[in-house]
Amino acid sequence: MDLKYLFYPQSVAVIGASTKIGSVGNDIVKNLVSSGFKGKIYPVNPNADKLYDLPCYKDIKSVPHKVDMIVVAVPAKLVTSVLEDAGKKGVKSAVIISSGFKEIGGEGLEMEIEVTKICKKYHIATIGPNCLGLMNPEIHLNASFAAQMPHPGEIAFISQSGALCSAFLDYGAGLGVGFSKFMSIGNKASITEQEILEYLAQDEKTKVIMMYVEQLDNPIEFINTVSKITHGANPKPIIAIKSGRTSAGMEASASHTGSLGGDDAVYEALFRQSGMIRANSISELFDYASVFANNPLPKGKRVAIVTNAGGPGIITTDEVIAQGLELATLNEKTYTILRELLPPIVHVGNPVDVLGDAKAERYRIAIDAVLEDSNIDAVIVILTPQTMTEIEDTARVVIQARAKTQKPIIASFMGLITVQPGVKLLQSAHVASATFPEHAVNALARYWDYAKSVSEGKEPWYKTFTDVDRVKVKSIILEQKGKKEWYVPEPKAKEMLASYGLPFLRSEFVSKAEEAENFVKKINAPCVYKIVSPDIIHKSDVGGVLLNVTPEKAIEGYELILKRVKFNCPDAKIEGVLCVEMAQPDGFEFIIGAKRDKNMGPSIMIGLGGIYVEVFKDVVFGIPPITQGVAEKMILEIKSSRLLEGVRGKPQLDTEVFIDALMRLSQFLEEFPEVVELDMNPVLVLPKGQGIRVLDARIVLDES
Amino acid sequence: MDLKYLFYPQSVAVIGASTKIGSVGNDIVKNLVSSGFKGKIYPVNPNADKLYDLPCYKDIKSVPHKVDMIVVAVPAKLVTSVLEDAGKKGVKSAVIISSGFKEIGGEGLEMEIEVTKICKKYHIATIGPNCLGLMNPEIHLNASFAAQMPHPGEIAFISQSGALCSAFLDYGAGLGVGFSKFMSIGNKASITEQEILEYLAQDEKTKVIMMYVEQLDNPIEFINTVSKITHGANPKPIIAIKSGRTSAGMEASASHTGSLGGDDAVYEALFRQSGMIRANSISELFDYASVFANNPLPKGKRVAIVTNAGGPGIITTDEVIAQGLELATLNEKTYTILRELLPPIVHVGNPVDVLGDAKAERYRIAIDAVLEDSNIDAVIVILTPQTMTEIEDTARVVIQARAKTQKPIIASFMGLITVQPGVKLLQSAHVASATFPEHAVNALARYWDYAKSVSEGKEPWYKTFTDVDRVKVKSIILEQKGKKEWYVPEPKAKEMLASYGLPFLRSEFVSKAEEAENFVKKINAPCVYKIVSPDIIHKSDVGGVLLNVTPEKAIEGYELILKRVKFNCPDAKIEGVLCVEMAQPDGFEFIIGAKRDKNMGPSIMIGLGGIYVEVFKDVVFGIPPITQGVAEKMILEIKSSRLLEGVRGKPQLDTEVFIDALMRLSQFLEEFPEVVELDMNPVLVLPKGQGIRVLDARIVLDES
Repeated sequence: MDLKYLFYPQSVAVIGASTKIGSVGNDIVKNLVSSGFKGKIYPVNPNADKLYDLPCYKDIKSVPHKVDMIVVAVPAKLVTSVLEDAGKKGVKSAVIISSGFKEIGGEGLEMEIEVTKICKKYHIATIGPNCLGLMNPEIHLNASFAAQMPHPGEIAFISQSGALCSAFLDYGAGLGVGFSKFMSIGNKASITEQEILEYLAQDEKTKVIMMYVEQLDNPIEFINTVSKITHGANPKPIIAIKSGRTSAGMEASASHTGSLGGDDAVYEALFRQSGMIRANSISELFDYASVFANNPLPKGKRVAIVTNAGGPGIITTDEVIAQGLELATLNEKTYTILRELLPPIVHVGNPVDVLGDAKAERYRIAIDAVLEDSNIDAVIVILTPQTMTEIEDTARVVIQARAKTQKPIIASFMGLITVQPGVKLLQSAHVASATFPEHAVNALARYWDYAKSVSEGKEPWYKTFTDVDRVKVKSIILEQKGKKEWYVPEPKAKEMLASYGLPFLRSEFVSKAEEAENFVKKINAPCVYKIVSPDIIHKSDVGGVLLNVTPEKAIEGYELILKRVKFNCPDAKIEGVLCVEMAQPDGFEFIIGAKRDKNMGPSIMIGLGGIYVEVFKDVVFGIPPITQGVAEKMILEIKSSRLLEGVRGKPQLDTEVFIDALMRLSQFLEEFPEVVELDMNPVLVLPKGQGIRVLDARIVLDES
Repeated sequence: MDLKYLFYPQSVAVIGASTKIGSVGNDIVKNLVSSGFKGKIYPVNPNADKLYDLPCYKDIKSVPHKVDMIVVAVPAKLVTSVLEDAGKKGVKSAVIISSGFKEIGGEGLEMEIEVTKICKKYHIATIGPNCLGLMNPEIHLNASFAAQMPHPGEIAFISQSGALCSAFLDYGAGLGVGFSKFMSIGNKASITEQEILEYLAQDEKTKVIMMYVEQLDNPIEFINTVSKITHGANPKPIIAIKSGRTSAGMEASASHTGSLGGDDAVYEALFRQSGMIRANSISELFDYASVFANNPLPKGKRVAIVTNAGGPGIITTDEVIAQGLELATLNEKTYTILRELLPPIVHVGNPVDVLGDAKAERYRIAIDAVLEDSNIDAVIVILTPQTMTEIEDTARVVIQARAKTQKPIIASFMGLITVQPGVKLLQSAHVASATFPEHAVNALARYWDYAKSVSEGKEPWYKTFTDVDRVKVKSIILEQKGKKEWYVPEPKAKEMLASYGLPFLRSEFVSKAEEAENFVKKINAPCVYKIVSPDIIHKSDVGGVLLNVTPEKAIEGYELILKRVKFNCPDAKIEGVLCVEMAQPDGFEFIIGAKRDKNMGPSIMIGLGGIYVEVFKDVVFGIPPITQGVAEKMILEIKSSRLLEGVRGKPQLDTEVFIDALMRLSQFLEEFPEVVELDMNPVLVLPKGQGIRVLDARIVLDES
C-alpha cells in the first residue's frame, strides 16, 4: 500500500464534519483549515450547507472532485459503508478517528475485521480506527482533533495511544522539538507499524523516529523490518518507549487497547535484536530524540566537558563513567591553549573548568580547543548562570561550534528561567540541549551504543543446520500427540534434542566387557556403569552402579559390577550395562530454555543454572532465528558470561559450542511449532574444546 | 556555636565592599540592598564615602554600631586580620566569600587553619571561605554574590559547590520551589554540615533539607547527627546528591575543592545508616524535595492513578510496580461511584481513566472517591491537554483535594506550554507537581521508603560484647608491630578474631584416644584427625590425616591413625593428634571484610563468597558501629540474602549468628584502630542453629 497519500494528500474530505463547536467532527475541519493546509478540504455533512466557509457535501460520492484522503469521524457502525463508498470513488488514504471497534470486543471486533477487508480491497492506506489522527507540519496538514500543531522538524512520532499525543505535542513545543510526521495509529486495522516505519525510513524529512508502543504483533517480522532501518545503508535511529512492562501495567493495557501486552524480557530481546533504542521514560525519549536528530554519529566514546562550575563538572563526570562513556584525556596542544586561557592557579584538565567569571569568548576558545583535539569524540557544554555569564552569546558560541564540527555537541544550560533565552537560541539553531547535564550524558551514551551497532552492521539472517534428523523428531511428536501426552517423557525429549545435535552426556548400552572398554576409551573420560536388568529397580542398593570408570579399569570394572550384582541378586536376569559419561566438575551449570507465546511467538532463554538462577535471576531472552551474532549478544548480556571467560584461574569455557547449541535450538523451534515449552537444565559448559553437556531436558507440546 | 546570627542577623557589614560595578564586593552590597533586607547594612571600604546610598566605613572597628554579621570579600591574605577585628568587636557570624585557602593548598591551607582558630576563639559562626554566600528569603537577606533571590518556601539547601547554587536558584524559580534557607558552605573552615543540619532540624521554617555533597569528613558522627534528624521525634527528611561517585569523578573533585572523595560504596552505607535519602541526579533532587515538602507522610504504598488518558496510565502503572509501590485495588464503594460517573462502556479500575473528554468536575468526583477509599494510600493525578480539558479548573480541583486529605497527592500535568497555567496554580498552592508522571512515582516511592524508615525508629546506638579478650588481641598487635610485620600471619589473625567470638572451625590438640572421643562427641559433627609430629611435614603421605571421623569411630580412628603413622615412620616423635571440625557442605560461602579509609574511617563489607563474588559483585558496606538493625539491613541489601532464607528446598541458614559476627567485628574494629584491612573468606553460613564457620582470615595492620 502506498502511504504517500496519508502524509501528502492534495485533497481531504472530512466524513462526519459537524457544525457543533467542540465536537470531534468540528475540530477536525477547524484544525485542517486553521493549520493552513494548502490542499482542498471537503466537509461531508448531509445536514449542513457550509462549515468554516467551506461548502458541505451530502456524502463522499457527492464530492465533485478527486479526493485523496478521508478523515472519518462518524459512529462506528457507519464506518464500513463510508469506506466502501470511498473505495469506489478512488480515495487512496483514510484516517479513521471513530472508536468502538476492537477495543470494545464483540461486535466492535467484527466491524474492525470488515474495515481491514475493505481497506485491502480498495488499497486504502488507513490509520485507525480509534485514533487521534495525523499531522504533517511540512505541508501544514493537521488531520486530527488535536488543536496544537507542532513546527516542522526532523523527528517522526508514531503513537499507539491517541491521548498521549496531546501531551507529546505540548512537551515538544516546550522543548523546541519539531516533527516531520506525527501520528496516532489506533487499532492498526489496515497498516502496521512496520509499513509506516518502512515509509519513514525512506522519508527525507525524517532523521529520527520515535515511538510509543504498547504491544507489537509479529516480533520476528518486526525485527526484520526494523533492523534493516537501524542497520541499513542509510541507518535511521528508532527510539521507543514500551509500556505495559509489568504485569499490572499489562492489565491496564488489556483494558485500554484490547490487546495483550507481551512479556517484557522478550521485548528486551526484540529491542536488542532489532537495533531499536529503548527509552525508559518519556523524558528520556525526548532527550534521545533531540540529541540524535541534532548530531552526527559519534565516532568514539571519549567525552570532554566544558563548564563554568566545578560541581556540575563532577556530577557530569560521574554520569559519563556510570553510563559507560570515557572522560577524555586532553592532548598536549589543548593543554597549552587552556593554560594560556585560564588563570595560572587553575588546575587544567577534563572537565575543562572555564571558571565562574567566563564570558562567551573564553567558552569559545575552550570549546574550539577540545573540538580540535583528536583525543575527543564528543563535547558537553555546561553553563550555570553566574553574574558574569553571557548566556545568549555563549549559546551563539555553541551554535557556531556545532556548524563547523563533525563531533556531537550537547549543551546543558542549567536552570529554567534565566538561561531560557540561551536555550531558545540553541533550540532554534538545532543544537541539542538538555535541561539537566545528567540527561545529556545519558542520551550521548545511548547514541554511542547506537553508533556502535550501526558500524557492526546487520546480522546475517539465517543459518540452517543440515546434520539434523527431522523425521525422528516429527515421529516422536506424532506419537505423543496420538497418545495426548503433552509432556514428553524425559528420554524422548532428550532424543528429540539430540537429533538436532544438542550434546547430552554420551552413553551406550553394552553386553560385553570389550564393548564397555571400547566406549570408555572412545570418550576418553571417566564413566559410570549402570546395570541393566528388568528385575532390579534400586541399582545402587545391589552394587549395580560403579562410578569413576577410567579406560584402564574398564574391563575390571565390568567384571566387578556383574560379580557384585550376581552375588546380591543371584536370580535377576542381567541384560548388560549402560555406560554413561560422567559429568565433569570443571565446568559451570547454565540453563537453556524456550517458550512460545501466543502473541510474541517463540523465544529462547539462557541463564546461570543451579541454585543461583533463583537468587540472581541472571537470564536473558532471544527471539529466533538466533544467529551467531544474536547468540553472542545474549551471552554478553548475562552477568555470568564472565564465568565463560574463566574467572579466578578457572579455564575459559566452550562458548563456541554454547552458541552452536542456541542456534540449533532456534532451528528446532522454528521447525517444530508444536513445541511450546522446553528446558535444558542444567547445561554443563566445559572448558574450551570440550563442548557442553545437557544433563536434563523437558519438552511440552501444544495441546492441539 | 549559635547559628542564629548566620540566618537572622540584624546588622551586616560587608568587608571589601567595592564601588566597581560587576565586582563581587559590589554585588554583595547591591544584593543586600535590593533584596529588601530590613536590618542595617554597613559597607566597609577605606577608599569610598558612599555605596548604594549607604555611608562607607574605613574598617569594621570604625562602624559605630553593633554588627551581627560580616560578609568578607577581601583578598585571602587579609581575611585573618579582618576576623580578628570582627571578633574583638563582638561580631557573631561571618560569611567568607574570599577564595585562595585550602583549595589551593600550601599557604592557603595554613591561612585556613588560622581562620578556624580565630572563629573558634571569638565564637564567630562562619561559613566559607571559598563560598557563594547565604540567603534567608524569609527576612529578605541575600548575603551572597548571586543576584537571583528565591521566594520563601519550606526547603533548605546546603551546597558544597558555590557555582551550582546559581543553577539551583534558576531551577527552583522555574519549578516554583521556594527556600527557607539557601547556602553555599565552601571549605567548612568553621562550622560543619552537622552543625548546620542540627540548626535546620530545629528551624520551624524548614520542612525538608536538600544537600549537594562532594565529601564528608566524619562519617560516624555524621550518621549519628543525621539519624537523629531523620528518625527523631520530629523527623525531617534530608535528601542529598553525592557526587564524585566514580574514580574519574573523584579526580575532578580533588582538583576542585581540595578534598578527596571517598569510596561510593561506603557513602551508600552512610546514606542507609543515617536515613538520608540519596538522589541520583539534580532532577531527582528537586522532584523529591517538592513531593516531600508538600505532602504528609504516606501511610502505605497503595497508589491510585487518576488520568484522562490511557497511555500515560499504563506508563505510570509500570513505574509504580518498578519502584516497589503497589497499584491499589479500589473498594466496592469507589467502583460504584466511578461506574455512575463514567460511560457504561468504560472498564472501571485503577488507573481510573476519566477519559479524554473529562472536565474538572469529573476529575473532582474521581479524585474525591479514591481519596475516601481506605484501600488507597496516595493518589497521582495525570492530565493530558485534550480539547475538552479544563486545565486551570482541574488544578483547582487538585488544590482543594490537597487541602482536605491527609494522603499524598502528586499532580502530573503533562506538557510544558499549554498546561503551564495549571502547573503555576499547583505550585503557588504548594501542591506537589511533576513534569513527567514517571518522576512523580519515583519521588513517591522514595517518600514511602522514608516513611517506613521513620516508623522503624532510630537504631539503638551501641552494644558492647564483654566475652572478648582485648589483652590477647592487643598483645598480638604489639608483637607484630615490634617485628614490623604488618601482615599478621594466618594463625595469629585467626586467634585475634577468635578472641572476639568469631567462630572458626573448632579444633583441639589431644594426646589420648579418650580425649579425641570427647572432642568429637562434644562438637557432634564429623572431624578430621591430623597427626602432630615435629618430624612429619607431609602428613597425608604417611597416613597422618583421617577424614570423616564420627563420634562412633572416634576411638577406633585415633588408634588407626597412630598405627598407620608408626608403620610408615617408625622413628618419628609423635606428640598427639589435632582434631578439627570438618567444613559442612550444607551451607553457603559468604565473605566478610573490613577496611579503614583515611577519610571515611572503618567500614565493613559483606557479600556472597566463592567464585561468584567476582561475577556478581554482590557486596554491601556498613559503617561501624554495626547494630543489629544495621546488620539486618546490610544483609537484606545483598541479593544473595535469599540464600540465607533457604531457596529451592535448601534449609534456612543461621542469619542470627551471621549478624552477631558483624557486630563483633564492628567492636573489634572500633577497639583496634591499628587494623586497617581484614578479610574473613570464606565464611560458611550453616543451617539455622548450627552457626557460621570462618575458614580463613587475613589481617593487615597500620604501618605506624
